[in-house]
Amino acid sequence: MTRRRLAMVGGALLLALGCAREPAPGSRGTAPALASWNEGAAKAAILRLVANVTTPGDPGYLPAAARIAVFDNDGTLWCEQPVYVQLQFALDRVKALAPQHPEWRTQEPFDHLLAGDTKAFLAGGERSAAAVMAASHSGLTTDEFAAVVKDWLRTARHPKTGRPYTDMVYEPMLELLDYLRANGFKTYIVTGGGVEFVRAFADSVYGIPPEQVIGSEGRLRFELREGKPTLLKLPEVQFVDDGPGKPAAIQATIGRRPVAAFGNSDGDQQMLEWTWAAPGARLAMLIHHTDAEREWAYDHDSPIGRLDQALAEADTAGWSVADMRADWKRVFRAP
Amino acid sequence: MTRRRLAMVGGALLLALGCAREPAPGSRGTAPALASWNEGAAKAAILRLVANVTTPGDPGYLPAAARIAVFDNDGTLWCEQPVYVQLQFALDRVKALAPQHPEWRTQEPFDHLLAGDTKAFLAGGERSAAAVMAASHSGLTTDEFAAVVKDWLRTARHPKTGRPYTDMVYEPMLELLDYLRANGFKTYIVTGGGVEFVRAFADSVYGIPPEQVIGSEGRLRFELREGKPTLLKLPEVQFVDDGPGKPAAIQATIGRRPVAAFGNSDGDQQMLEWTWAAPGARLAMLIHHTDAEREWAYDHDSPIGRLDQALAEADTAGWSVADMRADWKRVFRAP
Repeated sequence: MTRRRLAMVGGALLLALGCAREPAPGSRGTAPALASWNEGAAKAAILRLVANVTTPGDPGYLPAAARIAVFDNDGTLWCEQPVYVQLQFALDRVKALAPQHPEWRTQEPFDHLLAGDTKAFLAGGERSAAAVMAASHSGLTTDEFAAVVKDWLRTARHPKTGRPYTDMVYEPMLELLDYLRANGFKTYIVTGGGVEFVRAFADSVYGIPPEQVIGSEGRLRFELREGKPTLLKLPEVQFVDDGPGKPAAIQATIGRRPVAAFGNSDGDQQMLEWTWAAPGARLAMLIHHTDAEREWAYDHDSPIGRLDQALAEADTAGWSVADMRADWKRVFRAP
Repeated sequence: MTRRRLAMVGGALLLALGCAREPAPGSRGTAPALASWNEGAAKAAILRLVANVTTPGDPGYLPAAARIAVFDNDGTLWCEQPVYVQLQFALDRVKALAPQHPEWRTQEPFDHLLAGDTKAFLAGGERSAAAVMAASHSGLTTDEFAAVVKDWLRTARHPKTGRPYTDMVYEPMLELLDYLRANGFKTYIVTGGGVEFVRAFADSVYGIPPEQVIGSEGRLRFELREGKPTLLKLPEVQFVDDGPGKPAAIQATIGRRPVAAFGNSDGDQQMLEWTWAAPGARLAMLIHHTDAEREWAYDHDSPIGRLDQALAEADTAGWSVADMRADWKRVFRAP
């Protein structure tokens, strides 16, 4: 979760915009490649890129080691409405921790949150959200934090569908991950969310191992506890993996320029620019949330996953846009 | 290169401690595993770890995805005497850039360096070294910097042996990298040196791809130049990958606890502690520079690669120590 995104999140907290319906059951695993994608420009662009980079002799051919694909997470791989999942985790965790923090009853913004006064809490904007994030994401070792997130994901339910958040992932994107990996691609998540939070489910849900998750980072402090080394999560930001931070993090962590990049908001714009501008066959794709019936419809004015400038650039630069309503046969993974 | 290490480097600059001799020619590629390692406790510890983690049913067995090995670079994989290679690069680059910086002729510490007054330059200590690092490592895009490093590595020669620096790598460690990879390990470099510097040769010299090099980082600024996105290297430190920074960087980047860790100095102590303390079969090994004839002999009092507290901990904790003189049949890769 990033400061910039927190600022956008403030006004959107607990808004209930539309309601997701259950998709028709799919047949994941035995389905042909990209089975949930309708024929159209988006699917064709994916197939074309893969054909280019995997065909020896093609001008776009690349050895497998150079086939790097990067994916935003919130709104690109899983649902970010009505509120970023990680922020919901933070809110729930503050409530769970409240008995150990009697001082919160008279301390903003915790007092409003614990009293159920959402309006007063939201009035605190970015500062309130940051305080909640810091309180809920620090003071634990990395091992302890991972266990807390996994516990929460097991029991928490999406407010509209009643499904676990880890079921609120997009079936067409899971198929895309599988398809790229089957063609030698290494798939990375590059998320504005916290790296430790996303790693808690990325391997089991997306098949993306921890070393292929890049995200925002809090500072870690190495310390010996009764002689045992631990890494303690501090309430300080080490790196914000959003906007121009995304290409910087890709370079710092991967050290290779991606061949394909997938995002859904203005926070992904620079990552797509960085990917698209390299020579050779490239794919830059935005997921456009156009489906109010099966998911949500939002873009230019949304406080969550705002998609404005990046959509304009897609048009002028020639990026691909996957229109959820038109391009996807189904949205969520079948239960 | 890190501030802490720069502080240590100051006094050691341009010292000529001993002289490396050419090793006997080896037969790399067709040799059996670990052919340059003498029989002994160090080699046995390596073989034992690999047997444990690769044997199904062994209590130490691990799936390949969990087999992570981390290696320090300076003094562990290649020679760090008589001065860190990256600092020599920085000094050479300042001299190469001097014609474009007439102001340096009257500006400390560049004036001393350009006048050949080593003593005055060294008197500036850490501050001088940091100024040289900043001037030589920023102002370029990441692509430009990689090209500059590769150019320099092609032409620069080690002051004592006259060999390219990329030949000053330890044959037994190359064999160890090969051996671990042949047994399903993923090999990472975790270096106090700059990540962009080490990536310029890690793949061709060690077989370690850019995404498996973790190092100290300068800040990167994303900017459009004539509409083309670039990442500009700024003269500011983003992260120091040394000492307690190493386990923090391993967690932030890999998100898994290593199974084996190799280092040679006190800057590697916490990385070895972090690796060693995890449950299951583990290996923590120090490379001890004991061979004044074939390489250098240094430890407790060396301004470069100081090995003092970590060596004491190896003794009490039961870490392995590879004694270069006793454990290695040859030191450097054959020309």
